[in-house]
Amino acid sequence: MALSFTVIKTDASTGARLGRMATARGEVATPVFMPVGTQGTVKALTPAVLGELGVRVILANTYHLYLRPGHRLIEKAGGLHDFMNWPGPILTDSGGYQVFSLGGLSKVTEEGWTFRSHIDGSRHLLTPEGAVEIQEALDSDIMMCLDECTPYPATFEEARRSMARTLRWARRSLEARRDREKALFGIVQGGVHPSLRRESLEGLVETGFDGYALGGLSVGEPKEEMRGIVAETAPLMPPERPRYLMGVGTPEDIVEAVACGIDMFDCVLPTRGARNGLLFTNGGKLVIKHARFREDLGPVDALCDCYTCRNFSRAYLRHLFMSREILAMILNTIHNIRYYMNLMERIRAAIETGRFGVFKDSFLKREQETGGTNLD
Amino acid sequence: MALSFTVIKTDASTGARLGRMATARGEVATPVFMPVGTQGTVKALTPAVLGELGVRVILANTYHLYLRPGHRLIEKAGGLHDFMNWPGPILTDSGGYQVFSLGGLSKVTEEGWTFRSHIDGSRHLLTPEGAVEIQEALDSDIMMCLDECTPYPATFEEARRSMARTLRWARRSLEARRDREKALFGIVQGGVHPSLRRESLEGLVETGFDGYALGGLSVGEPKEEMRGIVAETAPLMPPERPRYLMGVGTPEDIVEAVACGIDMFDCVLPTRGARNGLLFTNGGKLVIKHARFREDLGPVDALCDCYTCRNFSRAYLRHLFMSREILAMILNTIHNIRYYMNLMERIRAAIETGRFGVFKDSFLKREQETGGTNLD
Repeated sequence: MALSFTVIKTDASTGARLGRMATARGEVATPVFMPVGTQGTVKALTPAVLGELGVRVILANTYHLYLRPGHRLIEKAGGLHDFMNWPGPILTDSGGYQVFSLGGLSKVTEEGWTFRSHIDGSRHLLTPEGAVEIQEALDSDIMMCLDECTPYPATFEEARRSMARTLRWARRSLEARRDREKALFGIVQGGVHPSLRRESLEGLVETGFDGYALGGLSVGEPKEEMRGIVAETAPLMPPERPRYLMGVGTPEDIVEAVACGIDMFDCVLPTRGARNGLLFTNGGKLVIKHARFREDLGPVDALCDCYTCRNFSRAYLRHLFMSREILAMILNTIHNIRYYMNLMERIRAAIETGRFGVFKDSFLKREQETGGTNLD
Repeated sequence: MALSFTVIKTDASTGARLGRMATARGEVATPVFMPVGTQGTVKALTPAVLGELGVRVILANTYHLYLRPGHRLIEKAGGLHDFMNWPGPILTDSGGYQVFSLGGLSKVTEEGWTFRSHIDGSRHLLTPEGAVEIQEALDSDIMMCLDECTPYPATFEEARRSMARTLRWARRSLEARRDREKALFGIVQGGVHPSLRRESLEGLVETGFDGYALGGLSVGEPKEEMRGIVAETAPLMPPERPRYLMGVGTPEDIVEAVACGIDMFDCVLPTRGARNGLLFTNGGKLVIKHARFREDLGPVDALCDCYTCRNFSRAYLRHLFMSREILAMILNTIHNIRYYMNLMERIRAAIETGRFGVFKDSFLKREQETGGTNLD
């Protein structure tokens, strides 16, 4: 296997798992959160700072890097790790979701996605084989199969057709892989229909991948539908392989999904939120621009050990944000990423010591009391 | 004296001086370059990074901090050092130049400057006494007297009237100072007229300040006029006190002014240039967006020891810049500030070892060969 994965402990009262993923670029404790580095940088952070924050794996977007600066240039630079100076593992998505959400006039056929670049309008065709080739050129450690993200809402028949195509594409992706040192994950589709999700998963497992991802969630469906699909599908995923819930999510979503047995997460929320002044804390979310922080000389989160919380006040961060200073984005991002890394550390420690069920209940209760993550 | 200053060595062939400035917040070797931290942050850098780059003193803008977040809030936070977490000395300007260049409908009377905030249009009056009060509230280490920056061009009579008012304001500033631990510098005005500059300087010296600055330069006058005024005025400034050339400048300007006996500099060029993709190197200036850097896998400057040059290629920096990534501004600023700090280290070493004249000639020759800093 290109990726060795060991479940160290399974929680007694939930489906939560403590695991270890071994890649050529180091070991990763799971459950893990992977910050998003869309264009070959986790926005506003140097790789040195990322490392200090406890980040072990990052995600990069194939669609963006293919269009700019181009995977061939990155290959020439020795791969994405050398290009961006990130020594740890990198997971790359397949580009499918970005074509679907960002590409102009995107159209899907059995061959693949045709689309126009959101940068210069040029025409492109992204096939399952091409997506693997690009990810191999990037020197990705964990590659994703090109999928057809099912829009929400979709009829059962639309969701079925899209799921079936994703399955055919997954087989083509596996055949296209040249470098067996790189892991390749299959993506479970099927919209909000449990039976389709099950069919998709069975087809992928039959083909055999290094890991399995739940895709097509967090695309507009009600939170409850997303949670239902995760709760029903995750336990069916092969226990000996890593399970990845794509594009999720809020701290509450992560804790809930860990309880269902999910091992890997990625989301733009901590980084994008930071740039918009949304800060995650142990006492609930803060919107730093609020006038009530104008003279607040306390730290963002007294329980946080990050550079931002140890050295700067809410009043200073509000001033930077109101003044549109770049340092606002830097300090906010440092804090939010550290918050997420701390959350994952607490999750892993709770599983290890057999307290995850208690941790989950008290975490969700407290999140509810402090208003949760209301992103509307 | 609020500020002790010692000239350690004067160059034999030029007027260059190696000095040491002792403040309550540490010693500073001169000639020194002070990065600009307009709104309580040197744009795109954390104070931790600033320290690693070798920065010892920074400049903050009174006008900006007075308007936002307000000097009273900063005073409440324990002063600007605590507010922004910068432990080293801070020099604050008086706000005069910013009122003149940024304030709306600014008008000067004998009392002071009236202006409208560029943020919300509110009306304000900035007097010499008020400028000292604000700077004391900020807990500045080196304060500047409010001056009336003479526009360019100005008639001799206009320049004379403005210079005379600046002199009267300087005396009022000194009388307004409450905290004698804080240094107060007088600003020499007089436009491009050597006789007025001399008269301004004599008046200030008679009053007696902790240091003397040349103001009203780099405001649109031809480079040669600026250099002429520095060359004629600097040698007349009291040798036992620090000499500060405000708002200057390019590496060439700095080397030339050091040769005239200037000890202190500040300029937005390295930081603003970095954000616009202009990089200073030992092989001349680079505009990183140029297509010729697209596949250039070498560092920005092979002779530079900064984090950016040790870890990233020109191709990566170009990609970040073209993609409008925040990391582009961070990495470019790190490099440019390190370039300026290295330049000052080389200047001081050259004075110390008696080679400054040779250093200056070869530096200016090489700058000329590589195109100099063409900012037009």
